[in-house]
Amino acid sequence: MTTKVTDIVGTEHRKLENSVNPLFLNRWSPRAMSGEELPESDLLTLLEAARWAPSCFNLQPWRFLYARQGTENWDTFLNLMVEFNQTWAGKAGALLVVISKKTFDHNGKPADTHSFDTGAATQNLALQGMLMGLVVHSMAGFDYDKAREVLEIPEDFTVEAMMAVGLPGNVEDLPEEMQEREVPSPRKELQEIAFNGKFKS
Amino acid sequence: MTTKVTDIVGTEHRKLENSVNPLFLNRWSPRAMSGEELPESDLLTLLEAARWAPSCFNLQPWRFLYARQGTENWDTFLNLMVEFNQTWAGKAGALLVVISKKTFDHNGKPADTHSFDTGAATQNLALQGMLMGLVVHSMAGFDYDKAREVLEIPEDFTVEAMMAVGLPGNVEDLPEEMQEREVPSPRKELQEIAFNGKFKS
Repeated sequence: MTTKVTDIVGTEHRKLENSVNPLFLNRWSPRAMSGEELPESDLLTLLEAARWAPSCFNLQPWRFLYARQGTENWDTFLNLMVEFNQTWAGKAGALLVVISKKTFDHNGKPADTHSFDTGAATQNLALQGMLMGLVVHSMAGFDYDKAREVLEIPEDFTVEAMMAVGLPGNVEDLPEEMQEREVPSPRKELQEIAFNGKFKS
Repeated sequence: MTTKVTDIVGTEHRKLENSVNPLFLNRWSPRAMSGEELPESDLLTLLEAARWAPSCFNLQPWRFLYARQGTENWDTFLNLMVEFNQTWAGKAGALLVVISKKTFDHNGKPADTHSFDTGAATQNLALQGMLMGLVVHSMAGFDYDKAREVLEIPEDFTVEAMMAVGLPGNVEDLPEEMQEREVPSPRKELQEIAFNGKFKS
């Protein structure tokens, strides 16, 4: 018997404090993927979701560079990652490098919310992927400088994150130490992150 | 006849390039709100959605300071905003100041994705609000320094954005110049934000 990562999505590892749409509770960041190619139409649907995020003055600072499994840029993207991430993300259907524009298009002034807004766009992508039964996993474990160099990312853009997206795979095919970690992670209590009025530590 | 903002949500102002869950297309940032109090349980549900966002090493750098309409901190929060935003956000049911922790809890080192991750959490909040038929509108038009001072936000946190959330109101009750802007905004074409391989300008 094999366990698809989608089988172990659920509330048993996560404690809700208030009612919420299951969409948010059930989204998590698995590592087990099948190694199958991700159809281009699926990738475009993920990017379409990101496209409709809100941003300051509708700047839309987010940009997504991508390589699909089996295409010419795949190795370039995979080799940006630290070894730990290459181990599992090599079975993704597509890899993305997420970047953001630091200045407004209309006047060149600093757009202070460029990273914040790009995080919002990326969450749309993650949720759309979850709704499609895909694995979506963001990571910071890659060489940011090398990404800038090999992907020719201009100085006016910040390198934010990489993402691996793909079809769910078997947990048993992950290296043993990753199998234990293949569960939805918990969260801080709400009273630790939300305060009525002033900041409380 | 009055037009509720929720009546004009739709695809007529927005051009999809690929299929996507309507959740993402239909979310936008109206300004017309009713001025009614937002039940505390609704606010907690919004915050619960934010709570389950992903973050680097599961740091959960996001914090939400809030004031509900009619409570003691309301004026303090509203007065942080520029005049233009006070005009419409005064009819919100709750105001939030979103901040993010710049360092990891476990070792104090810089958490470079703190703004990016907090943007993701805020998008969960926005989408949960949309699913509840609420208005959720983020803004940068407020006094960041004053927010830090009056809400006693420590130096180790970045002030990211403010948000107004509330029950939908009548477009006709907005000042005339805002009525014209009360439509879902368009987006760049997908080919402007997503690139196969290297960056393209």
